[in-house]
Amino acid sequence: MTTQELVAQIKKKKSFLCIGLDVDLNKIPTHLLKEEDPIFAFNKAIIDATHHLCVSYKPNTAFYEAYGIKGWQSLEKTINYLNKNYPEIYTIADAKRGDIGNTSTMYAKAFFEDLAFDSVTVAPYMGKDSVEPFLAFDNKHTIMLALTSNEGAFDFQTKTVEGKELYKQVLETSKSWKNSKNLMYVVGATKAEYFTEIRKIVPNSFLLVPGVGAQGGNLQDVCKYGLSKNVGLLINSSRGIIYASKEANFAEEAAKKALELQVQMAEILN
Amino acid sequence: MTTQELVAQIKKKKSFLCIGLDVDLNKIPTHLLKEEDPIFAFNKAIIDATHHLCVSYKPNTAFYEAYGIKGWQSLEKTINYLNKNYPEIYTIADAKRGDIGNTSTMYAKAFFEDLAFDSVTVAPYMGKDSVEPFLAFDNKHTIMLALTSNEGAFDFQTKTVEGKELYKQVLETSKSWKNSKNLMYVVGATKAEYFTEIRKIVPNSFLLVPGVGAQGGNLQDVCKYGLSKNVGLLINSSRGIIYASKEANFAEEAAKKALELQVQMAEILN
Repeated sequence: MTTQELVAQIKKKKSFLCIGLDVDLNKIPTHLLKEEDPIFAFNKAIIDATHHLCVSYKPNTAFYEAYGIKGWQSLEKTINYLNKNYPEIYTIADAKRGDIGNTSTMYAKAFFEDLAFDSVTVAPYMGKDSVEPFLAFDNKHTIMLALTSNEGAFDFQTKTVEGKELYKQVLETSKSWKNSKNLMYVVGATKAEYFTEIRKIVPNSFLLVPGVGAQGGNLQDVCKYGLSKNVGLLINSSRGIIYASKEANFAEEAAKKALELQVQMAEILN
Repeated sequence: MTTQELVAQIKKKKSFLCIGLDVDLNKIPTHLLKEEDPIFAFNKAIIDATHHLCVSYKPNTAFYEAYGIKGWQSLEKTINYLNKNYPEIYTIADAKRGDIGNTSTMYAKAFFEDLAFDSVTVAPYMGKDSVEPFLAFDNKHTIMLALTSNEGAFDFQTKTVEGKELYKQVLETSKSWKNSKNLMYVVGATKAEYFTEIRKIVPNSFLLVPGVGAQGGNLQDVCKYGLSKNVGLLINSSRGIIYASKEANFAEEAAKKALELQVQMAEILN
């Protein structure tokens, strides 16, 4: 999917919500555990109930890998279901991959070609040649960690490197990489004040923002400092939406939570 | 496996060789492509021919993920084969994972419990709470990227952060994390002169060293600066060993290449 198509979808739905499909069998409604593939059954119900309120779904691969081959089958079924039934949806494999050049190419093929995701998250530590293989794919985005929403973000990301915080160096440096137009960045919502600085470096790039809701970030603050002229934000919520209820009506309850955010987003976009 | 057991194996075999099982269907002998599971057939032959010359095998997960569910099945068969037939072997999942706390726990369970690897590689960018969940597992090691062997290592890892290169900050900081005794580090062989500095910070930690052979690193130089009193090095070679030949005798040819390195290692250990 192109950036333009993503922006068009955002304007049509008046939403820049991304729903994180981080499925934990201990947290889903117990009646689903009888299904042949409880993870896919859960995802399908959530997707069917919320697809008109969001523009993107983001399965975190860790939750699928934790169930071994069965988990990968659930992930494959989920992305195939999305691509077949809701091709307008922007899909993100939250995999945080990165390796030396040839090996990154293997990861890029796995997520962009075999699984046909629109984008994948990557880690920046190994530098240019670990990320450029992902950037080589047309109409695919590579979403690089810049400033994450966890406590450990302060261990290295905010440390000063040659006069500038590391996450700013990462943003700045990556702009010179080949096909950097295909880059987006992960920026945690728990630090809304950082968005002003970030927008000075990447004024138009899309930012994937985790940490709204369960992790304490505030939607209004993030938008105040983070919106670009093309919206430029994908706000992710996972637990706050998908685990709204453990009852039979869990998908409806999830849709209510998604609607609350979508209504706020529509107001902000007006 | 404990560090002591790993050291005992090294002393017994007079080897600190790790063989990287980075299997690419385009590079393996064509007669194997007729097998039901060519990747596992290749790994099994390589392992059977080389297990007495090395102490460790390291499949890079990217090469398996690139083949989707079939690839994960090959990975699972490979680790199960190793654990059943060569339980003395130290196994490394080269996955370079890392995420926020709960999610890292999912990855740790996937690699330490479900797949029963002895260790897994992780990326440091997200800091303490992205790595500590891995460190919580007894008798398992977490191998964190410090200084990698690729060109992109110079983008961020060698930049100066508060008076010290980032990779040194990573080494230094990680020593204060909970269960840091379970840490090892990835240090590329292409920069042997760095080992002196690294040993000042982590004098006894095991270092996993890629980049000997195909990537140009020199075994003698690495050992000169990198050996600790408990050996403290695992030298990885992948392509240089496993792709020694594409003929029917590929496993024997791989064993010859492994033997060359093991003989050098035995001399160094004497």
